[in-house]
Amino acid sequence: MTDPWKESFDHAVAVARKAGAVIRDALQNEVRIMTKSSCVDLVTKTDQRVEKIIISSVRERFPTHSFIGEESVAAGHPCILTDKPTWIIDPVDGTTNFVHGFPFVAVSIGFAVNKQLEFGVVYSCIEDKMYTGRKGKGAFCDREKLQVSDVTDIMKSMIISELGSNRDQETVSKIFSTMQKVLCIPVHGLRGSGTAATNMCLVASGAVEAFFEIGVHCWDIAAGAVILTEAGGVLLDVDGGPFDLMSGRMMSANNQTIAERLIREIDVFEVERDDVVKTNKSSNANVDVSNGHVQ
Amino acid sequence: MTDPWKESFDHAVAVARKAGAVIRDALQNEVRIMTKSSCVDLVTKTDQRVEKIIISSVRERFPTHSFIGEESVAAGHPCILTDKPTWIIDPVDGTTNFVHGFPFVAVSIGFAVNKQLEFGVVYSCIEDKMYTGRKGKGAFCDREKLQVSDVTDIMKSMIISELGSNRDQETVSKIFSTMQKVLCIPVHGLRGSGTAATNMCLVASGAVEAFFEIGVHCWDIAAGAVILTEAGGVLLDVDGGPFDLMSGRMMSANNQTIAERLIREIDVFEVERDDVVKTNKSSNANVDVSNGHVQ
Repeated sequence: MTDPWKESFDHAVAVARKAGAVIRDALQNEVRIMTKSSCVDLVTKTDQRVEKIIISSVRERFPTHSFIGEESVAAGHPCILTDKPTWIIDPVDGTTNFVHGFPFVAVSIGFAVNKQLEFGVVYSCIEDKMYTGRKGKGAFCDREKLQVSDVTDIMKSMIISELGSNRDQETVSKIFSTMQKVLCIPVHGLRGSGTAATNMCLVASGAVEAFFEIGVHCWDIAAGAVILTEAGGVLLDVDGGPFDLMSGRMMSANNQTIAERLIREIDVFEVERDDVVKTNKSSNANVDVSNGHVQ
Repeated sequence: MTDPWKESFDHAVAVARKAGAVIRDALQNEVRIMTKSSCVDLVTKTDQRVEKIIISSVRERFPTHSFIGEESVAAGHPCILTDKPTWIIDPVDGTTNFVHGFPFVAVSIGFAVNKQLEFGVVYSCIEDKMYTGRKGKGAFCDREKLQVSDVTDIMKSMIISELGSNRDQETVSKIFSTMQKVLCIPVHGLRGSGTAATNMCLVASGAVEAFFEIGVHCWDIAAGAVILTEAGGVLLDVDGGPFDLMSGRMMSANNQTIAERLIREIDVFEVERDDVVKTNKSSNANVDVSNGHVQ
């Protein structure tokens, strides 16, 4: 059987590389001449410009496809996954890193059909690493096949846990309490690149055993989800239930044993789903939630 | 005036590159075929092998120079800085990263004469970045001149804070309490590469504003100290006093304002100095401490 999404996949790789070059260029030529205080505008500008490049290029080639993009959603477009072929895009994952020139910034493009993820492309553009995964066809970093680590003993693991951007005291306390419990299991160490997409690729490549976060968005993790599972990893909710792309919560790990051990230490807190309809939240939320599931 | 240490500096760069190639080779050819559980031996073996390569190469060229190397100290050699030209070596900084294949592993070579640091070389061997600094001559990453960030507003800063390898509950609690207070100043974010040498180079290059740690060793930070100060940064003790290479404590920052603001949040805990003489601690400690200062 031929692969119906091969053309879309090839296009995603090409446009991610092009988008990454735009980001690198902005970093090299614009960030350097700015004070950091004026950088926030540059981030927004670059984010919007890169998303526009990706969407217009895809729309020209595949006019019937849909989009969920970080910037489009911020501009008021709905964040609802339908059965249509849908491109789920984070044009610049790691905006804080971008502002500071910290070397992890990624373009993340996931692609779903009938609410099932078909492929994912994460281009870590400062490192110049192209991570890809296609359902049933494996995951790669450039030409190298990815395979999660074989560690099952949590005490031999290295874990990624991000602090996120929420500075609400109760949330921050829960995040730190979780981190401390995880560190003292004990594990070998805790790391964080500052981009969810790259973090998932680090799990996929075996450099760390797991990455979990509460407060992620579907565009941060859609591409990484395919790359991780195709590298042999597992995805779960942070309470051990099934993974839900729209829930804002994710445990990604090399295997079920590591995932379940970590889940025991996680202090869960509430975050809003991505697919809550903002205009009429109270009456539509439940319906939209059930429509938005990708498991 | 000619530079009396130019030849030593050039030798340090060459031998760091050679050492980095050995580490990359071990990572690519040996770590992959091992289970992580058997990796500890490989780390020790690689650490010892790389330190031997560096020391024997330097000794052949500069037979009168002294050495303080992580592995030599672990093997019982003294960790006392004299007035002699002294090479301060961490053959593999980031051993946990090394075991896991996490992409930050560095060779760190500092060089002191009359207890003053003259140059530092940090080779981040997976990224293939050569960081160098020479007293009075600036700091570089490959050919690019390094300059710390110009941020003075702590709320626009990104900070590196490592969790370290100590899993003692009281220590861990102090580290987390400090991290939480720093995050909630608030700052843009907290990061950590897992290697002190690379962290200092990230401050020097302006990617982050500061890096502090209690529990570092002189071989982790000697090279980075020169690179950082030559890039315009400042070094202090974590209590705001003068920096002391042998104290195990360090605040490195882009400027005094950021350093002092962070120092207010640090919960200090006790660590052993590097230059404590283990064989006859009680009678010699004070003498050795005063001899070991590099400020």
